[in-house]
Amino acid sequence: MTYCVGIKLKAGLVFLSDSRTNAGLDQISTFRKMIVYEKPGDRFMTLLSAGNLSVSQSIREILQVEQLKDEAGEPLTIWNAKSMFDAVRVLGSAVRHVYQRDAESLKQAGVEFNASLIFGGQIGKEPMRLFQVYSAGNFIEATAETAYFQIGESKYGKPVLDRVITPDTALDEAAKCALVSMDSTLKSNLSVGLPLDLVVYDVGSLQSDKIACIEDNNPYLLMLRGAWGNKLREVFDSIEDPVWNGAQTNSPIKANSARSKTLRKICTPQDKLI
Amino acid sequence: MTYCVGIKLKAGLVFLSDSRTNAGLDQISTFRKMIVYEKPGDRFMTLLSAGNLSVSQSIREILQVEQLKDEAGEPLTIWNAKSMFDAVRVLGSAVRHVYQRDAESLKQAGVEFNASLIFGGQIGKEPMRLFQVYSAGNFIEATAETAYFQIGESKYGKPVLDRVITPDTALDEAAKCALVSMDSTLKSNLSVGLPLDLVVYDVGSLQSDKIACIEDNNPYLLMLRGAWGNKLREVFDSIEDPVWNGAQTNSPIKANSARSKTLRKICTPQDKLI
Repeated sequence: MTYCVGIKLKAGLVFLSDSRTNAGLDQISTFRKMIVYEKPGDRFMTLLSAGNLSVSQSIREILQVEQLKDEAGEPLTIWNAKSMFDAVRVLGSAVRHVYQRDAESLKQAGVEFNASLIFGGQIGKEPMRLFQVYSAGNFIEATAETAYFQIGESKYGKPVLDRVITPDTALDEAAKCALVSMDSTLKSNLSVGLPLDLVVYDVGSLQSDKIACIEDNNPYLLMLRGAWGNKLREVFDSIEDPVWNGAQTNSPIKANSARSKTLRKICTPQDKLI
Repeated sequence: MTYCVGIKLKAGLVFLSDSRTNAGLDQISTFRKMIVYEKPGDRFMTLLSAGNLSVSQSIREILQVEQLKDEAGEPLTIWNAKSMFDAVRVLGSAVRHVYQRDAESLKQAGVEFNASLIFGGQIGKEPMRLFQVYSAGNFIEATAETAYFQIGESKYGKPVLDRVITPDTALDEAAKCALVSMDSTLKSNLSVGLPLDLVVYDVGSLQSDKIACIEDNNPYLLMLRGAWGNKLREVFDSIEDPVWNGAQTNSPIKANSARSKTLRKICTPQDKLI
């Protein structure tokens, strides 16, 4: 399994991925799921991938040579695309390319053609953009209302993103949020694992030095995991327990005998006879 | 969708269920997913159900008349079973009964026979037990290491259960934990909805007055949702943001240029030519 998250803020972009890959439960390996395409001063793009590893590796392999034709009939690649929209079209085309090559054989082997990608970045003076790309090569774009995408094992880590991320969130705060989201996922799903790859991109910079490989001895991750777990428990303890029908609290749980009758089956003489 | 959780503690049992049922996104209804079987002083059992509603309703319908033969060849029902183990065997038999009746027709219609049940309680002087029952009528039992079961939309609400629940957790604290777990699920999945049904059972009591139907104006639920959301945010804010390569913190994120090279594709002259 995999967990990757990409976040688009006014201040920039945050990408985080785990690196565990499993085929069944007894074949577990480490593969990086993030790749950065950078031409400093000209363009900065990051790709995160989930799904069948052979499919996503093939997509990454051919992405740099994949080309479409632009409106003038000239070759269009991720390295000469003038906008992120054109670049994501090239990525979609690469997905379809691999589909045509592999999907039929995979199907014969009973394996689904399964790729799920997050792709975002900035080219020249064009605005930053963040996309999620599906197995069919189609894609959707992050908006102000939905400022992040997740791929892979997304559910455990979603609540904290929903509570924190807005387009106005600061970059480092969003990186912290992504790491908390990853921590919840690591804790609940053994098939998501360290090391993590983290990229933070400042809007307009067209390059990034904030690229980190976070291993299990990383001081920030250790601090965050400990603090989050402990404080979450403190918060939980600070909320009062339910009190049944109590006058000593403003927020009692009321046992409702009328409603509960509809839930209750009482043993009847007939039942006893059975 | 559905979210139900059953927890077994030394002090007793906690059951919580939502009540939203959907067929697609445009046909959403309220159905109770909890049923209590009680013969005060003799036995107290609670059943939670997820999956195909027609299947789980059928199971509930025939459960009270379903019978197996005990070792002496006498009829065995949930009302005369001498242990929870026998009672869950009757439930498993009811599941198989409905399977035999409906599975083939469902399959022809392209619908999976899908039932997932939590069943727990206490009979006489026998110990309390908690089971999860699958579509095939087989079942597993909660243990000290795994003190709770979830069915339906389980992932959003799992992290808090993992952090809080042990066999020594107090009953009301476990009820609070189940409600926090439900709150995370309600927030993230629209197809899980109010009202909630909550049962708290004290070990040895063989009956319960703590049965509540919790609607959206319930004071305790309102307090809990507000407090949990606010305090979670405070905890998040209290953890320091990552600092890149900084000397001013004990827990920096280090940008690792050596490792990040393996992630980075720099545009080469060859790439440009494409």
